[in-house]
Amino acid sequence: MTGHGQFVGRCHVLPLRVYYEDTDAAGIVYYANYLKFAERGRTEMLRSVGTDHRQLETTEGILFAVRRCEADYLKPALLDDELTVWTEVASVSGARMKAEQIIRRDVDDLVRISVTLACIDRAGRPKRIPERLRTVWGQLTTSG
Amino acid sequence: MTGHGQFVGRCHVLPLRVYYEDTDAAGIVYYANYLKFAERGRTEMLRSVGTDHRQLETTEGILFAVRRCEADYLKPALLDDELTVWTEVASVSGARMKAEQIIRRDVDDLVRISVTLACIDRAGRPKRIPERLRTVWGQLTTSG
Amino acid sequence: MTGHGQFVGRCHVLPLRVYYEDTDAAGIVYYANYLKFAERGRTEMLRSVGTDHRQLETTEGILFAVRRCEADYLKPALLDDELTVWTEVASVSGARMKAEQIIRRDVDDLVRISVTLACIDRAGRPKRIPERLRTVWGQLTTSG
Amino acid sequence: MTGHGQFVGRCHVLPLRVYYEDTDAAGIVYYANYLKFAERGRTEMLRSVGTDHRQLETTEGILFAVRRCEADYLKPALLDDELTVWTEVASVSGARMKAEQIIRRDVDDLVRISVTLACIDRAGRPKRIPERLRTVWGQLTTSG
Repeated sequence: MTGHGQFVGRCHVLPLRVYYEDTDAAGIVYYANYLKFAERGRTEMLRSVGTDHRQLETTEGILFAVRRCEADYLKPALLDDELTVWTEVASVSGARMKAEQIIRRDVDDLVRISVTLACIDRAGRPKRIPERLRTVWGQLTTSG
Repeated sequence: MTGHGQFVGRCHVLPLRVYYEDTDAAGIVYYANYLKFAERGRTEMLRSVGTDHRQLETTEGILFAVRRCEADYLKPALLDDELTVWTEVASVSGARMKAEQIIRRDVDDLVRISVTLACIDRAGRPKRIPERLRTVWGQLTTSG
Repeated sequence: MTGHGQFVGRCHVLPLRVYYEDTDAAGIVYYANYLKFAERGRTEMLRSVGTDHRQLETTEGILFAVRRCEADYLKPALLDDELTVWTEVASVSGARMKAEQIIRRDVDDLVRISVTLACIDRAGRPKRIPERLRTVWGQLTTSG
Repeated sequence: MTGHGQFVGRCHVLPLRVYYEDTDAAGIVYYANYLKFAERGRTEMLRSVGTDHRQLETTEGILFAVRRCEADYLKPALLDDELTVWTEVASVSGARMKAEQIIRRDVDDLVRISVTLACIDRAGRPKRIPERLRTVWGQLTTSG
């Protein structure tokens, strides 16, 4: 598996390593940093279906902002751990996308994260998700 | 108000500034970094009622781990903003504490965060919250 | 002292606390994070002489980019430590400013940092530092 | 190339992507975050010659602390960029190791970083670098 991940069915899987920068004085990954791992997973999933953040902003004038995030911390990740970030599109509506994500070490679920993203323009106003993206993401939707 | 905050009724209020380190290329505070602000608020509230992380670990062998976190992102914070982190103890049970937190710019709520913390020992096993702490936190509980 | 610091002679002093977010699994502040502390010190010094990043970019179309940074790590900072960031303007030329910074715990020097900043426009091209800023910073210069 | 990098001659090369977490409101990678990239490169180089941080601490009771760091920022990295971190062992002495690192986008040098690491025990006291490590690193030394 490359550093950019791959699809396993409708689920995108990104491998990553835990470095010192991710940990804290309790010896485990700092709770906010799992959200960085999750965002890397969403970014690579987005790229692997044909687009990236900079292109979206430059050519379509849109970006995606997190509106809500829930995280359940089940087991801690440690320095040097090799993790995988599992990302699924749970639903896509006119201006919102919901992703379900799990951060795993081997088969162990460490953290489960649900994220709701809103499509906005540069001024922060809600925008419809471009048809092309909705079609692609709709095909990835697990409930679809 | 000092850099360590103060109580307004049962609510602890910590002021902080948004620096470049907190922002991202979308020009706003990165979504995971509000969780850092929230943790600063909880830390200062804890200290102002008489204890700190290092002392808890050294003298009582305990630390607090985040078990669950929910964040609603209402409005973005920007570079140079002066924010306040409002922290309330929502409930305290044998081994868990729940905090409700709001990150504000003036009177605007920007992000609302609920965090459930578990008291654990160095090996990660659940521990009862020390009686002294439960008494102090119980007096801060908004539902109390 | 407030959370925004104050001048002691020509040196700006910013107090700050070490939180979990700043530490790593070695139990000390992560080496890159001292550069965040330094940037907070420079930002507050800049503000206390009358300007801020957003205003500089909006009204004058300029920002400051780090060109070179040297850091000597003498002693580690620990969780819960109260530190101070000491910032001096070492020199100001047409388009560059050099700052000398020390991060201290009480009277102990923990990290010494030298930073060279270049004034640039939004496209990254070198720009002269505005006359007003050069005058103010020139008065702060320790070699002046 | 995998996510863990590989050697090109005596130089270890680690590929990585720039995510939102790495950038700031100036639209570029935040200056302290290049030091995180550099640390990832050193970690993967260390692993690929047969050891890792946790094993070093557990079995030999040692870790490596940064004593000095110099960074020259030549060109900025942007969101979505694919970078490589080039890491060379410049010298190894009894208790110190010096690494020269370059962060590149294609053939462009963006940031050049020199890092001096000291081998210490858990109490922070200087320790000799284990013979086995000095031998392996000595073979990687570019001046060797």
